[in-house]
Amino acid sequence: MATVGSATSETPFFSMGEGTFKIPMTLYAENRRRLVENMKKNGHSGVILLKGGEQTTRHDTDHEDIFRQESYFHWAFGTVEADCFAALDVDTGKSTLFIPRLPEAYSIWMGTIHPPARFLKRYAVDACQFVDEIPTVMAADYKGKTIHVLYGRNSDSGNFAEPASFKGIEEFQVDRDSLFPIIANLRVFKTEAELEVMRYVSEVTSAAHVAVMRQVQVGWNEYQMEALFKFHTYNYGGCRHEAYTCICACGPSGATLHYGHAGAPNDRPIKDGQIGLLDMGAEYSCYCSDITCSYPVNGRFTQDQKDIYQGVLDAVIAVETAMKPGVSWHDMHHLALKTVTEALIKTGVLVGDAEEIIKSQLAAKFMPSGLGHLIGLDTHDVGGYLKGFPERSTLDGFKSLRTARDLEENMVLTVEPGIYFIESQVNMLLAGSEFDKYINKERLEQFRYFGGVRIEDVVLVKSDGIENFTQTPRGIDEIESVMSGGQWPPAEDKYPQ
Amino acid sequence: MATVGSATSETPFFSMGEGTFKIPMTLYAENRRRLVENMKKNGHSGVILLKGGEQTTRHDTDHEDIFRQESYFHWAFGTVEADCFAALDVDTGKSTLFIPRLPEAYSIWMGTIHPPARFLKRYAVDACQFVDEIPTVMAADYKGKTIHVLYGRNSDSGNFAEPASFKGIEEFQVDRDSLFPIIANLRVFKTEAELEVMRYVSEVTSAAHVAVMRQVQVGWNEYQMEALFKFHTYNYGGCRHEAYTCICACGPSGATLHYGHAGAPNDRPIKDGQIGLLDMGAEYSCYCSDITCSYPVNGRFTQDQKDIYQGVLDAVIAVETAMKPGVSWHDMHHLALKTVTEALIKTGVLVGDAEEIIKSQLAAKFMPSGLGHLIGLDTHDVGGYLKGFPERSTLDGFKSLRTARDLEENMVLTVEPGIYFIESQVNMLLAGSEFDKYINKERLEQFRYFGGVRIEDVVLVKSDGIENFTQTPRGIDEIESVMSGGQWPPAEDKYPQ
Ligand SMILES: [Mn+2]
Ligand SMILES: [Mn+2]
Repeated sequence: MATVGSATSETPFFSMGEGTFKIPMTLYAENRRRLVENMKKNGHSGVILLKGGEQTTRHDTDHEDIFRQESYFHWAFGTVEADCFAALDVDTGKSTLFIPRLPEAYSIWMGTIHPPARFLKRYAVDACQFVDEIPTVMAADYKGKTIHVLYGRNSDSGNFAEPASFKGIEEFQVDRDSLFPIIANLRVFKTEAELEVMRYVSEVTSAAHVAVMRQVQVGWNEYQMEALFKFHTYNYGGCRHEAYTCICACGPSGATLHYGHAGAPNDRPIKDGQIGLLDMGAEYSCYCSDITCSYPVNGRFTQDQKDIYQGVLDAVIAVETAMKPGVSWHDMHHLALKTVTEALIKTGVLVGDAEEIIKSQLAAKFMPSGLGHLIGLDTHDVGGYLKGFPERSTLDGFKSLRTARDLEENMVLTVEPGIYFIESQVNMLLAGSEFDKYINKERLEQFRYFGGVRIEDVVLVKSDGIENFTQTPRGIDEIESVMSGGQWPPAEDKYPQ
Repeated sequence: MATVGSATSETPFFSMGEGTFKIPMTLYAENRRRLVENMKKNGHSGVILLKGGEQTTRHDTDHEDIFRQESYFHWAFGTVEADCFAALDVDTGKSTLFIPRLPEAYSIWMGTIHPPARFLKRYAVDACQFVDEIPTVMAADYKGKTIHVLYGRNSDSGNFAEPASFKGIEEFQVDRDSLFPIIANLRVFKTEAELEVMRYVSEVTSAAHVAVMRQVQVGWNEYQMEALFKFHTYNYGGCRHEAYTCICACGPSGATLHYGHAGAPNDRPIKDGQIGLLDMGAEYSCYCSDITCSYPVNGRFTQDQKDIYQGVLDAVIAVETAMKPGVSWHDMHHLALKTVTEALIKTGVLVGDAEEIIKSQLAAKFMPSGLGHLIGLDTHDVGGYLKGFPERSTLDGFKSLRTARDLEENMVLTVEPGIYFIESQVNMLLAGSEFDKYINKERLEQFRYFGGVRIEDVVLVKSDGIENFTQTPRGIDEIESVMSGGQWPPAEDKYPQ
């Protein structure tokens, strides 16, 4: 699958083996260099101490979930192993990885116990020691200096990063505040090396979507699409984790924006005439993709499906055509909302003026989600609402935006407008509401069990526009062609990006 | 896939949809009945309060892992939703499920908000209220009575069950000690309804193993076997979760007993001449399977592979032939160890008397794992070392047994002997050790990169022997036949069980 650039054979790299993408360890070295540079630029010195993710077990049992590295730690060190720490000297740039000291029994149950020298080479760091040596190292090198630890609020979850600690840290000057906004903001801007990984994982994701699109059959259960998608991304792309829970929503399920969770586990039968909303993204070495395809499960759009789908696609095209550095993401959301509102007017569900309908907050009933989000090492990536950048809106829909920043070069975002006929919202509108004058109830009633349409691309902001990492059929004719066995990718791409 | 019995259409049931097994809610009612009966028999009264599993997010992000119910809670209530509690009146048997009160926004993002009445019917409980009503319900019904909560040590993890709590619980008599040993011991003995689910999940698992066995190719990466296995169990069996991390170990990887974790993620290329050790089990509605198949990746055994494999298979057959109520699991481990030791003597790696080699603890270097474990709602199921039952051995190998109990009817256990050439152990033996007189170093050297062979069945202890839930090719001839396209299951089964 690795059609994009890869590490050369001499650089230490991560990969899942032959045929999968090679990530050079220089990717992480560059991130560390950027971090040190920015810490210095902001007047900081001393040392950064990061805590890697811990291996967890489920409830009180010995069931171990497959470990996935904490994202900030991965960004700086790329370590796949659990229970590590790492130090980065702000003044010299020296990187030290701290690995757990493993008991002898590890060699029987978990594999060969490798010495620090091997980790040093594998991760191309300057030093490698054991976690239990942190107090000694810190006392020897950083007495009287500042230890910067990671502490700050994730604006999507409301949770706080867990700062690194060690026995005796209270004897040092500890700065919990400076590191977080700097590293979070650096993560917003992807390096060329990171972009290569992100192209790869979206390429793998796109191919898996096309496979599902080609094979889905009326009569399957929704989760069979999830099974097939996961198989493709893992088998052909080496992606062991998905970036998020697969949403395989057919017909009415599509109106539930985060369908697929344990309480609604993609377990409905797929019925003839339904439109499917498939929101699935793979993860490769913690880098995420997040792509949504919507298409009729039987391969042929009805006129209503065409109307709704085309409205959403028009919103995607409008936004992606307008995106470039300096553009406000808030404005892009407005543009998308206007385009889908116009489609709802055209198909007869809404009546009146699009801008007026947006202003009334009615449009947000059909598109309550934000237009898109930053994406990287987390699907909903960090840096969306840092201090000094525009704050979260209070308007319906707009307030769901995970960032309100102006676009800048090397941001990667999703563009994911949608039209949803959500049961609770449709019931409210049909029962009669402040929005009565904008609603054609008879027409709305016809969409009661329609579900929803979302189209989601992963795009990179470049100096003069965007690059689209998504490679799936988007046009109605393209989709119908691919679903009836047509060639993909096409001989000639008729659509922009 | 559901060839075994299923819920009738009138009983409320869980299933993943058409073609998957229907679990009647009477399964959980029966478990509750057994629990109440045993609590009373032990002189207890009052109420049992259980805490369900919580929805978790990863690190500081909003990434939600797919929720999987806490096993004790599932055993008693079968609830798929997170963040529930439940009460069970010891005197009357009345069951009350407490569900979280969901915010209005849930209906947009997560799906329709269902009223308690729907949960009451779905889970066939006597009452359903909101979690925030627990204090009121407890105060009204159990003032001055005892609240039994779950607290005790899991003997596999060393972790403790988290007891339920609520605001004001300190005003009640709380008993943290009585419930745990009773419920853990009840989980050891499977009901007919539970056995039906366990047959199903092992049937699904067996079929997926056969699919992998037929399709594996030299040149794949190991994880492609994992990808294929997961696809089969999910697509054909509705199994969204695996029971544990897939171990896809080919060649030397097979000597790492818990290969497949994030530090050794099934990422090696599969090479001609290697023997594969595939330990993979699906989970359906929290009930686990755990099956290991070992076979040459190119479909043909070498003589060395035959010798080792047949030794392990002989151990499986010896044990499964001897298993019945009253038999000591410790004795079964000894029997397996003796059988594999004899195979190692026969193939020339070891020299001397099998019993003497076992006594020296040398045999355990080649089979450091326990013979098998209880299995049910956890892969390593609870109840292995409860008070009043035989304690853990201190001898190598024997001490890895997850239970030392005598067998009883309706226990379900794995039988999983193995022979492993573990790098650290082989190095130690070749370097010269107290075991020199038992070792043919030249012969051992030939097995340095062999890896390991494990064969693992899931079996039920019946009144007169066992029932084997595993349905995979086990004989060398059967495996070679299936791997070259032969029929499976065979027209006639030549092997016992
Ligand atoms: Mn998204
Ligand atoms: Mn096992």
